[in-house]
Amino acid sequence: MKKTFTWRHFAPFINSQSVAYLSTINKNIPHTRGMLNLSNKANFPKLQKLIETGTLYFTTNKSSSKMLQISKNNSASVYFCDNNTFYGLLLIGKIEVVTDNKVKQSFWQDGWTIYYPKGSGDSEYQLLKFIAKEYRYYDGKFEVYSGEF
Amino acid sequence: MKKTFTWRHFAPFINSQSVAYLSTINKNIPHTRGMLNLSNKANFPKLQKLIETGTLYFTTNKSSSKMLQISKNNSASVYFCDNNTFYGLLLIGKIEVVTDNKVKQSFWQDGWTIYYPKGSGDSEYQLLKFIAKEYRYYDGKFEVYSGEF
Repeated sequence: MKKTFTWRHFAPFINSQSVAYLSTINKNIPHTRGMLNLSNKANFPKLQKLIETGTLYFTTNKSSSKMLQISKNNSASVYFCDNNTFYGLLLIGKIEVVTDNKVKQSFWQDGWTIYYPKGSGDSEYQLLKFIAKEYRYYDGKFEVYSGEF
Repeated sequence: MKKTFTWRHFAPFINSQSVAYLSTINKNIPHTRGMLNLSNKANFPKLQKLIETGTLYFTTNKSSSKMLQISKNNSASVYFCDNNTFYGLLLIGKIEVVTDNKVKQSFWQDGWTIYYPKGSGDSEYQLLKFIAKEYRYYDGKFEVYSGEF
């Protein structure tokens, strides 16, 4: 029988990673960059209650290249990897810009003024929401599992 | 004046990373996975003389999903990231399967029998060559530089 997994199975791993690798498409070429993983419980304890099952949130700059890429193609993937065990989780889904100002404000962290000097009202401060549809999971022991959420 | 960089500038960073994040396209969706970085000098000292400037090599399984993806679209990117400083380097280019058996054999490492039990002649052992055309480099201090090699 094919082994399948739920979000709950992956949550402890996701919640322990400090960096998420977000990939989007630019002219039919994949672009990847490291992002602050807001699902990291230790780094962002107050945000955990705001993040729904099956979703991930990221901050970015309004003028960043990924904003333009997402506007043209909102298919994206997020990869988490333990560089020692090669345990790796690829989440495939859609990414969207959060336009609800209340939600944006609720995610704001004081320390982010290093990125956005004007604070939560800084026009460069953007919040992205990724909704996972599928997973590919490598257990570090030569097995790959894939499925849908 | 726009600041530009050469491969030589990035080489020390590339040669110090143990993991490379390789992204390919699957049905217009980016797929990313961690790969052994064969350019790592400490981990693969004997391979360094085999790797040309501007290229990266990866091992993979013949039956892996990335082999099928590459056969349909050979545009790819490779990302390196320092998770502490967020110094990040995205290399954009083309990836191809190395079919020259002599080259494949020259890259073979004894320890890889854990991945390919039959050794360098194992039909699952595949060598990929990535040729970088462009870069996007984030210096960890809020500046992004991009250019062509």
